[in-house]
Amino acid sequence: MNKDLIHGGALDVMQRNFPNTDAPWIDLSTGINPWAYPMGEVSAEAATHLPTRDLMETCRAAMARAVNGPEDALVLSPGSELLIRLLPTLLTAERVAILSPSYGDHRMSWRQANCQVLETTTPLDEACTADVIVVCNPNNPDGRTFSPDVLEDIRCRLAKRGGWLIVDEAYADLDPSLSMAHNGGKEGLIVLRSFGKFYGLAGLRLGGAFVPEALRTRLEQVLGMWPVSGPALEIATRAYSDRAWQINTRECLAKARHRLDGLLMDSGHNPVGGTDLFRLLEVEQATKLWMHLADAGVYVRRFEWSNQHLRIGLPADPVAEGRLAFALIP
Amino acid sequence: MNKDLIHGGALDVMQRNFPNTDAPWIDLSTGINPWAYPMGEVSAEAATHLPTRDLMETCRAAMARAVNGPEDALVLSPGSELLIRLLPTLLTAERVAILSPSYGDHRMSWRQANCQVLETTTPLDEACTADVIVVCNPNNPDGRTFSPDVLEDIRCRLAKRGGWLIVDEAYADLDPSLSMAHNGGKEGLIVLRSFGKFYGLAGLRLGGAFVPEALRTRLEQVLGMWPVSGPALEIATRAYSDRAWQINTRECLAKARHRLDGLLMDSGHNPVGGTDLFRLLEVEQATKLWMHLADAGVYVRRFEWSNQHLRIGLPADPVAEGRLAFALIP
Repeated sequence: MNKDLIHGGALDVMQRNFPNTDAPWIDLSTGINPWAYPMGEVSAEAATHLPTRDLMETCRAAMARAVNGPEDALVLSPGSELLIRLLPTLLTAERVAILSPSYGDHRMSWRQANCQVLETTTPLDEACTADVIVVCNPNNPDGRTFSPDVLEDIRCRLAKRGGWLIVDEAYADLDPSLSMAHNGGKEGLIVLRSFGKFYGLAGLRLGGAFVPEALRTRLEQVLGMWPVSGPALEIATRAYSDRAWQINTRECLAKARHRLDGLLMDSGHNPVGGTDLFRLLEVEQATKLWMHLADAGVYVRRFEWSNQHLRIGLPADPVAEGRLAFALIP
Repeated sequence: MNKDLIHGGALDVMQRNFPNTDAPWIDLSTGINPWAYPMGEVSAEAATHLPTRDLMETCRAAMARAVNGPEDALVLSPGSELLIRLLPTLLTAERVAILSPSYGDHRMSWRQANCQVLETTTPLDEACTADVIVVCNPNNPDGRTFSPDVLEDIRCRLAKRGGWLIVDEAYADLDPSLSMAHNGGKEGLIVLRSFGKFYGLAGLRLGGAFVPEALRTRLEQVLGMWPVSGPALEIATRAYSDRAWQINTRECLAKARHRLDGLLMDSGHNPVGGTDLFRLLEVEQATKLWMHLADAGVYVRRFEWSNQHLRIGLPADPVAEGRLAFALIP
């Protein structure tokens, strides 16, 4: 049992590692919307046939419209994770500056490509020296945001030198004003989008990237004709086209985040950051609190890089809220 | 309208290119089982949660058992297409010998990697000179088969030189005796498997590769923690575990293939090859017959490399059989 290796979303591992814990588990370890987009009926053809070009293009158009980006610069993939891992194999880079702390897959992927990775709280300062700059906007886990205008300036400076700005907008559906998607397709810019988090359907595996034309061609060569499952394409087309659900969901998540903040503060924990899908706590001994919560059947996210931080997702209902509140009692 | 670019599975393109054709279209352009595995219920968690390690491992174990290969050498992916396209980016090769004619993605992927590609009817003869040899077993579209013993001998010879044998077993579920999966994990061997064809669920996007450990690690680094959707993992676990359905389906497809052969011969066309999921016809003018069939709303597969061949999938019901028989009348 190596509890140090436990990350978010691995409820099966938690159940094995804490067999005597209160059931059922409350999984607050991810930043995935607990009130998923209602999937409705999926056609039999979506599963039985290879996805048609039409189905793929319709979903691509819906996603592009929903995030205000140019359809012809968008590449779909089975989750943004695959894009994050493919990019270092497709771009030529030596020096990569990555926002830190942040989503660990970026650092890992560039390291595996034997790049010189600089983890920094000020990656934009490297616009004159780095080949690639990676930021998450808003950032996971601290919720830090970057102005799209500032990022566009950085993109210009990098593009002039043949460099790249990668903006991971996995959580930008929460605040569309943060997005760089409208600049999608410009030289030197890669905007990553994720379907699973805001729409609460991470198991369907759908992501996308707005990229310049040459990189789009190269990505499509690797990803092929049918990268995304038919059911994911059908459901995501409806979800990305449902403006009423999106607006309502933004409000609903903001309210839930305020409820969670209240609950956390009532237990003596002031969130130091996050988004409307997760909150970041600064605590004295993160591992100790994490274990205490796990013993009570509440699964939250902790981090390799800090024993002072925990990330907590939104409880799905009053029962989960109650369990969290009770578990937070020292 | 570029009819030369039309390949299989693109019914949407056909409908646009032949707007005045008899409706509904009969799609015989793919080699996908028209009697799909019954999907049954899929849990909500499969879509809403990131697939757990357990779900992934359970599916991997079921697939490995079903094809008689070692579980720990198997990597899952969202379709075998992605694996075909990734391999040239992960293996070092200059000379690649590929069975011809065969599934075109292999040739295309190695060409894109700037390899010297030899397309040949006798790729195994290149075991002393090629870095990579690629065969489909059974082959698509002509159904040609290779003895696993012969292939194992070729693998040994290639492995001694640091080379690779890639065996694409997309249609080997039809005849498990052809499979090399039991050798999975041995040096120099890559066995590709596809879920969609035999099980008739190509839209779910699931494939796999049996590979040696170092390549498995590299593939998993690129594919990440959640390469396959939760619904695909759940459904494929059941399908790969359902021996009764598999045995019954093999019989059912063999019978359907005999019915199709009879129908084709009645119309003066003798199949020159194929598998129990598709038949290959040699005709005088393939494009002309293909157009004639398309005008009648029957969509079959033709090939860039020959104007003497058409591939025809299994009609799903007597209506489709009747439409095909009628359309084949000159």
